[in-house]
Parts: sequence; C-alpha cells; structure tokens
Amino acid sequence: MSELASRASELDAADELAGLRERFVLDDVVYLDGNSLGALPAHVPGRVEDVVRRQWGELRIRSWDESGWWTAPERIGDRIAPLVGAAAGQIVVGDSTSVNVFKALVAAVRMAGEGRDEILVDATTFPTDGYIAESAARMTGCTLRPVAPAEVGPALSGRTAAVLLNHVDYRTGRLYDLPALTAAVHAAGAIAVWDLCHSAGALPVGLDEHGVDLAVGCTYKYLNGGPGSPAYLYVRRDLQDRFDSPLPGWNSHAEPFGMRPGYEPASGAVRGRVGTPDILSMLALEAALDVWDGVSVEAVRAKSLALTDFFLECVAAYTPAGRVESVTPAAHAERGSQVALRCDDAGDVMKRLIERGVVGDFRHPDVLRFGFTPLYVGFADVERAARVLGETVAG
Amino acid sequence: MSELASRASELDAADELAGLRERFVLDDVVYLDGNSLGALPAHVPGRVEDVVRRQWGELRIRSWDESGWWTAPERIGDRIAPLVGAAAGQIVVGDSTSVNVFKALVAAVRMAGEGRDEILVDATTFPTDGYIAESAARMTGCTLRPVAPAEVGPALSGRTAAVLLNHVDYRTGRLYDLPALTAAVHAAGAIAVWDLCHSAGALPVGLDEHGVDLAVGCTYKYLNGGPGSPAYLYVRRDLQDRFDSPLPGWNSHAEPFGMRPGYEPASGAVRGRVGTPDILSMLALEAALDVWDGVSVEAVRAKSLALTDFFLECVAAYTPAGRVESVTPAAHAERGSQVALRCDDAGDVMKRLIERGVVGDFRHPDVLRFGFTPLYVGFADVERAARVLGETVAG
Repeated sequence: MSELASRASELDAADELAGLRERFVLDDVVYLDGNSLGALPAHVPGRVEDVVRRQWGELRIRSWDESGWWTAPERIGDRIAPLVGAAAGQIVVGDSTSVNVFKALVAAVRMAGEGRDEILVDATTFPTDGYIAESAARMTGCTLRPVAPAEVGPALSGRTAAVLLNHVDYRTGRLYDLPALTAAVHAAGAIAVWDLCHSAGALPVGLDEHGVDLAVGCTYKYLNGGPGSPAYLYVRRDLQDRFDSPLPGWNSHAEPFGMRPGYEPASGAVRGRVGTPDILSMLALEAALDVWDGVSVEAVRAKSLALTDFFLECVAAYTPAGRVESVTPAAHAERGSQVALRCDDAGDVMKRLIERGVVGDFRHPDVLRFGFTPLYVGFADVERAARVLGETVAG
Repeated sequence: MSELASRASELDAADELAGLRERFVLDDVVYLDGNSLGALPAHVPGRVEDVVRRQWGELRIRSWDESGWWTAPERIGDRIAPLVGAAAGQIVVGDSTSVNVFKALVAAVRMAGEGRDEILVDATTFPTDGYIAESAARMTGCTLRPVAPAEVGPALSGRTAAVLLNHVDYRTGRLYDLPALTAAVHAAGAIAVWDLCHSAGALPVGLDEHGVDLAVGCTYKYLNGGPGSPAYLYVRRDLQDRFDSPLPGWNSHAEPFGMRPGYEPASGAVRGRVGTPDILSMLALEAALDVWDGVSVEAVRAKSLALTDFFLECVAAYTPAGRVESVTPAAHAERGSQVALRCDDAGDVMKRLIERGVVGDFRHPDVLRFGFTPLYVGFADVERAARVLGETVAG
C-alpha cells in the first residue's frame, strides 16, 4: 500500500461522518459528481412509493390536506433553512433556479426604488443567471452590467438596484466572500441576491447572520433531492412585505381558495410561491433531507476541506508535473467543495476516467470538475480518483 | 333495480371504453374529481420506481443522456400533441401552468408588435390566469382588460395585443367556441392564447386545425400525470422563431452546454424551456400518458357527453325540484366534461357526499363540481352519484 493510500485509510478511520455513507445508495464507483446530481438516499425510493401508491393512488385529492401536499413548499423550505443559516419562515421551495432568479431580481429592483436602474451580475456566473438577469433588466427598465466579483465594489453606485452573485463559482469552485460582498452592496443601498447552488449543503452560508436580502438555490446537488428537484427562494423576513413578485400565481394569494378575481399577496415567504407544486419531485426532496438528521454543516465543511486538500496533494503526487493545473483556490477561505483542474483534452480525459469508475464532469472548454460531497465521499475514494487520473493522463 | 340503474347497466355494457378502467387504480369510491387530480394509472408506480432506483440511484448523472432525461420536455410534449390536435415539435412540458401563462402572454405581446398595448382576459377565468396576465401587462407596458368571453368580439381592436381565454370554464364547465374566438382574435390582428387545463384529454381541441397561436395547460387533470405534474406550452410552428421568452433559461439556449455568456435561443418549441426539468414528476407523467394508447379523443368526447347527459337526467330524477340547478350549459357544443350544480350550502353537501363515497369538489361560493373522466368513470358511477346526491340534499 502506498503512503497516500495508508493515509487515506487512517483519515477514513478517524472520520466522524464516515457512517453517513450508509444513508445512500452507492456502488464501487467513486462518485465525484454530487455537485451536479447528488446520490440517491437509501430511504427515498420507499417514501416516493408511498407518495405514489397511497397518497396519490388511494387518497387522491384528499392528500392536498391529509398528506400535507398543500403546505409542502414552506414546510420543506423550513427544512432547508438551518442548512443555509436561516430561521424558519423565510424559504419556499418550488420552480427551477432560473425561475427563482427571475422572481428575486425583479422583486429586488422593485424594492430598490426610484433612480436605481442597474443590475450587476457576476460576469463568470453560471450562464442561466446571466440570461435571466438580462431578461429581468429588460423587463424592469434596467441596464445589466456584468462585472467580475472582485470588481463589484468599484462598480457599485447610487444607480445600483440589485447585485446577483454566486456563492461558489460553478466552474472554478472559487468561494466568494458573502459577508463582505453583501455588506458592500448594502453600503451602496442596493439589494444583494445570492445564488447558493454550489454552496448549500457543502458549507455554512449564514444568510440571516450576514443580512442577505434574497437568495436562490437548487436542491439536486449537495442536498441530494433528485434530478431536477425543485429550487428554493429565500426572502429575508423584514423584506417580505415588500416582495412584489413578477409571477403572482394563485398559490401566493392571501386566500388561494377564495378564487377571487383580484390579487392580494399572502404574508411571509409563501408570497414566493407561484403555481401548483410538483409534488412527486418535492416530496422526494423532503425525504432526501432526512439524511441531514444529526449532521452539522460545520462538520461537513471541515471534512470537505480535508477532502479537497487531500485530493490536491494526491493529484500533485500522482500526475506528471504541468499536466493538470488546479483553477480552484488553495486558500480555504476561497474554496468551495470542488476541485477544478485545467487539462488539455479534458473532455476525452473525463470519458476515460468515467470508464474506469471515477465520475466527475467536464466543463467546456478545458476543465475537469470533481465535486466532494462529505456525506458520502471518503478519503480512499479521493486517493483512488487521483491515482486513476494520474494513470489516465500519463497513459 | 330502478329504471335508471338498469339503463346504467345497459350503457356500461355497450361502452367500448369500459375496459380502460382497468388501466387505473380505483376503489369503491365514485371518483368525480379527475378534473382536479386524475386517478393513478396502474403502471405508473413501477415506472417511477425504476426512475428512482435505477435511473437516479444506479446510473445517476449518466441518465441525463442514457435515460433520456435531457430531452424529456420535448419528447413528452410530442406525446401530448395528438391529444390536443397538434403536430409534433410544437409542445414542451415543464414548469407550472402559471409560469407558462406568463411566458405565453409576454411572448404574445412581443409578437403583436408596435401600437398594440392591451391584453384581454376572460373575466371569469381561473384566478391565476388573471393574476399572471396582470403581471404580464404591467411588465410589458400593456393594459389588462377583463371581458366576458361573449364580449371578446366587441372588445377587440387595433390596440389588442393578445387575448387569453379558457377553453372550458373551471367553475361552470362551459365550453367556449375556440375556432370562432380564435378567428375573431386573428381578424383583429391579435395573438390568441388558450388555457386548455379543463379540455385537454376530455375533448378534441384542434390546435393546429384552428390556427391557435399559443396554448398552455396542466397535465394532472384529464391527463392523469400526478399531483402538480408539469404543465405544457404550445407554440405554433410558424411563430416559434418569433417566440421571445421572458424566462430565457439555459435549457432554451441553442447550445446549452456551451456555457456561453450570451443568450442565443434554440430553434423550435425547445425555446419554451427554462431551467432543469423536474424529472420525477415529468417521467411519471410520461408513463401516465401510456393509458392513451389506442384511445381516440373523439370516442372519449362521445362518452363524456353521454355521461354528463345521463348525470343531468339522473339528477333531475333524484333531487327535489329546485334544490340544485345546473350552471353547465345543456347544449353539447357548450359543455365540457364536468357538471356544476349550484346548491345552497354546497360546501356542506360536498362534505357529506364525500363521506358517502362520492367525490367531487366544492367551488366557492355555492358550486358542487363533478368531473367525468371517460377513461375510468362509468354509467353506474353516474347513477350512484346522482342517487346519493338526491338522498343527501333531501335529508
């Protein structure tokens, strides 16, 4: 056994989260793509079967009340809340991340008030955020300004209505300084909107503590909600009365079954709901959140950093010098829960890795992306992934 | 056996669709709420289990390609297409009806062109359509004018950009004249947007034949897709290049995995997609559509009218004169697949009906609503429902 393999064994033996792996369905593959689609929690199939066979098949329409379907968006929001540092009553689940970015940005511009006609967006954002921000700007009479996150400070002005930022960059894995950037946005009198897709479930977010205004995120990465599971929207409690949704569907009405012709928004986070929630996907997510029982996000973060540190060390040891280059920051304060390696012919390399049982993903044009989900990835996985990578790029 | 019960037996014996009931999970209840939530098709639980255990649990991220997840929105759209009289390539599935109304109306205003600044909406519409239309009007600089469907003709003018109408009224069950109203909208140079929630799967719609521009609908009523299953959007083929979505998420990009900062819309109906599709709900719907194999919508419509005719006859025979009054038109050309009865203390009456195994629903303030899904409702069900209703309102 190599020195690194021995180290991996010791690290796994000392890992207090190691037992959580039993909560998931996994096989012999090293699955480093949980930042794209989280693995299946073992108890989810049974819960989904109950939703389909009993709740839908037997109770049918009665389940809207009796099985708690109607209140699922806010109930599940309250399950996500502690994972992102939010008190209850501020998150609703539903729709896709893109749709929630639209709600959040339009509402942000409407909150920002007169004379503020610019939306700043992370220039290296996951594309959909930029596309949707462009539409939100167009439909609210604003101008969209893409800026590098490091240049947000100088770009802020009295014209800034809202700033849309990613907590962790989807490509590089860089973690941005949410507290400082939020404070800077607030100092300019603007609204801070954060996309948590690549941070929620992997590291502490502290939405309430840092005074974030609005946030969105998906649930199928580190929250393991299943393919295309619904996204969520956070609206800070003291802003909820001013949240003026561009998608005021009947589920956000103060009295949805009053069937009134005039719209009157509900109080609270429910105001962020739109239409009938997709119950099967939503209740699969609710079940998936059970894997967090007794797990602290701080412990997850500590293990995540240990995993990515160890991966970088193993990659340095196993790959020929200069063959791959990490584009993920070395500093812990700037690193999410993934490592992105720049590599010639990355697309082909990833194909070969997958054939050998190491699953990451390829991001155009030249990035190998490896996500580390501390709930089910161990140190032996990390050593094996780096070793197979070394053999693949050397071969 | 009463004369009506005998007639019911004869009608069931002669019903060529009677065998379809075997395709569903049903019990001793008379389920007349399929216009709210369709019953569970018998093979859906097994298919959902495969999606969860094998596609998600074993193949994980590979399923986006290997299990056809990525193309599900347009593939399932093509399954719905023949049910609403559309050729392939014009429907995508995803998001809620409310979100699709927003896409359709904003896109309609943008197609309508300069000088057209009014949106007409059915004044008795299901509320969410009106709320969303108000938002679409606000965000496109239009005025929203609620009008009774009978007054659409006189209300149309050179200022009309778009008209949003329901094919069947959710409360009264009235069927509107889609061909004539669409022609009138076109004669005024405006865009016709139809909400098919209460008609698709119950009667022929003829989208292509009648030149409808845009249409939306849900899939959890007569299409039996499951609670909150995703809605769909129809964009007529020759309008697709002009469809300018207010929700241009990355799934609608010409090259979604190119991760390009600039938005360039895909060709075709795919342009109506937004974010990552909710795969569990979506593939449950796909499975549910199998119950339509070998079934013609025309045969379904013929049985639907026979069921509602017979229900009205039984209600007249079994209920004290004047105790209930149908608000659903008697003329076949004006009747959807439901019967709505105005009734004092309708809320209480519906509660008692449900206790006795006859499930319809109550719509504020005084309507008993009974939906007839010809795929699984028979004539004996109809006779029993009317008989129990008669006993309930007499008691």
